Amino acid sequence: MNRKIVTSLLPLFILGATLRSAAQTNTPSLAEKLGFSRDARLLIVHADDVGMTHSVNAATIAALDAGAINSASIMVPCPWFPEIADYAKSHPQIDFGLHLTLTSERAYYRWGPVAPKDKVPTLVDENGYFHLDWKPSTRIDPKEAELELRAQIDRAYAMGIRPTHLDSHQYRLLQNGKELFQVFLRVAHDYRLPAFVSRDWFVESTYLEPALSPTDIVIDRAITISPGIPPEKWNEFYKTALKNLQPSVTEFVIHLAFANDEMKAATRERDTWGAAWRQRDFDFFISEEFRQLLREHKIQLITWRELARAASR
Amino acid sequence: MNRKIVTSLLPLFILGATLRSAAQTNTPSLAEKLGFSRDARLLIVHADDVGMTHSVNAATIAALDAGAINSASIMVPCPWFPEIADYAKSHPQIDFGLHLTLTSERAYYRWGPVAPKDKVPTLVDENGYFHLDWKPSTRIDPKEAELELRAQIDRAYAMGIRPTHLDSHQYRLLQNGKELFQVFLRVAHDYRLPAFVSRDWFVESTYLEPALSPTDIVIDRAITISPGIPPEKWNEFYKTALKNLQPSVTEFVIHLAFANDEMKAATRERDTWGAAWRQRDFDFFISEEFRQLLREHKIQLITWRELARAASR
Repeated sequence: MNRKIVTSLLPLFILGATLRSAAQTNTPSLAEKLGFSRDARLLIVHADDVGMTHSVNAATIAALDAGAINSASIMVPCPWFPEIADYAKSHPQIDFGLHLTLTSERAYYRWGPVAPKDKVPTLVDENGYFHLDWKPSTRIDPKEAELELRAQIDRAYAMGIRPTHLDSHQYRLLQNGKELFQVFLRVAHDYRLPAFVSRDWFVESTYLEPALSPTDIVIDRAITISPGIPPEKWNEFYKTALKNLQPSVTEFVIHLAFANDEMKAATRERDTWGAAWRQRDFDFFISEEFRQLLREHKIQLITWRELARAASR
Repeated sequence: MNRKIVTSLLPLFILGATLRSAAQTNTPSLAEKLGFSRDARLLIVHADDVGMTHSVNAATIAALDAGAINSASIMVPCPWFPEIADYAKSHPQIDFGLHLTLTSERAYYRWGPVAPKDKVPTLVDENGYFHLDWKPSTRIDPKEAELELRAQIDRAYAMGIRPTHLDSHQYRLLQNGKELFQVFLRVAHDYRLPAFVSRDWFVESTYLEPALSPTDIVIDRAITISPGIPPEKWNEFYKTALKNLQPSVTEFVIHLAFANDEMKAATRERDTWGAAWRQRDFDFFISEEFRQLLREHKIQLITWRELARAASR
């Protein structure tokens, strides 16, 4: 981008920054637009990866039914997508987004693109599945990524889902450069859906903030457990996060499943985000302790549907 | 086909018929080529649908390990194909065929073609999955079927499987007219693999026998349990079949799985070939009673690998 364009875009960025960090101004903050005070602690308890396996679907539905979580996102290319699409269609009140997926991640249980695979050759490996992972040498064509994302969203609508938001499996659309992030935003704008972007990612990925438009929703932080946390510290991690939750909007990005035969087999090549990991998440969020912590720390739950409505005001 | 061609092909058909019903001649029968007497009772105990779910894979591997079954066939388009491909690659002695698949069959858990879906439009529904089922109005383009079958076989080889035979999921390539059967045979011939064809299907599907070439292997009968058998008569069905097994080559076409959460969910829209059905099959074939019946009735087990070798002699 040359200096002239940068200069001419500057007012837009300033406007965007103003809208997005309204705490110092008279512009109503996202919290206020949602009908809360500026210092309200607002939380989305969001389960990723729905559709991946039956185990993930069953645990997510159980957690939604129990009121343990209030938002989730669905992987359209996965084999168990039809099960969760059927559920979403018959439960239109639930805050389901689409977990846009460009990787196949696991060794023994895999999936590929929704778009015809000969139209997205850079997204697939030699056997026609999505790449297990992207290496530095993996060149992803942004045009193919866009074609695939649109195919995923179109299939979701065709099968009866009315998504409330879009997010990105393994953060691939956020952590792999400006071009893929621009694809993510363009698709989100075209379908008039909020894209999950969190302000606390701006430092590490400097291309995020400049690419946003003033109307994009940016939440304040995403909290997710990482492989550095040992299993015995699991609940402590979440308890500490809840006790210290800062004002404005936070999303807990969690991963639910039952650690049954299917899930153990599907994730057996590594423990990270595996069956036991997801069972621990399920056990914590379904617990009375979690509900008690929400009450104790006066944490209010919000959804992407509410965020989108508030942002459009 | 005009009369002249029919006439000119007649000697070939007669030769084929001669080779395929050698019992009355001096030509060695398939049993004899296999090193058995003409009246030997030879059985392939064959599990279908491997790769469909983890439950099917786990039950099939358990039955193979226990020596309860000695042959099986793999569905390449299914999500759990990579798991069984990895197993087959590391167990090259096992008699694995490919269970060529053109339908997606189940409502909540689905799969689609291996070929790019825009190249096989008649094989897929409006959401890009294989049709759940073929209705009388479903027009399948044989050229697309052939492209897809070749894509399935190519992926199997690419992922390390060395199949011993080909068969057809839900008998779609056998029960849907001459053209699809010719595709099945052409593909089998090109890859030099035996195609599962049983003489007892010739009456119902009259186009089968004339389409065969003299070198095609035709076994004598296929025995498979049908929805008419109530659960409490399951073992009795197999016991009766074993007691009355006729000489020459029979295949038991069975369907193994554990009736766990995954399998119950994957098959919940109907009981036929469902989780409990497959658990019953597993329970019978893993039993000491089944082994005892084999010994008692002097039934010899053979595989597709042995059949292919014998036929090439």
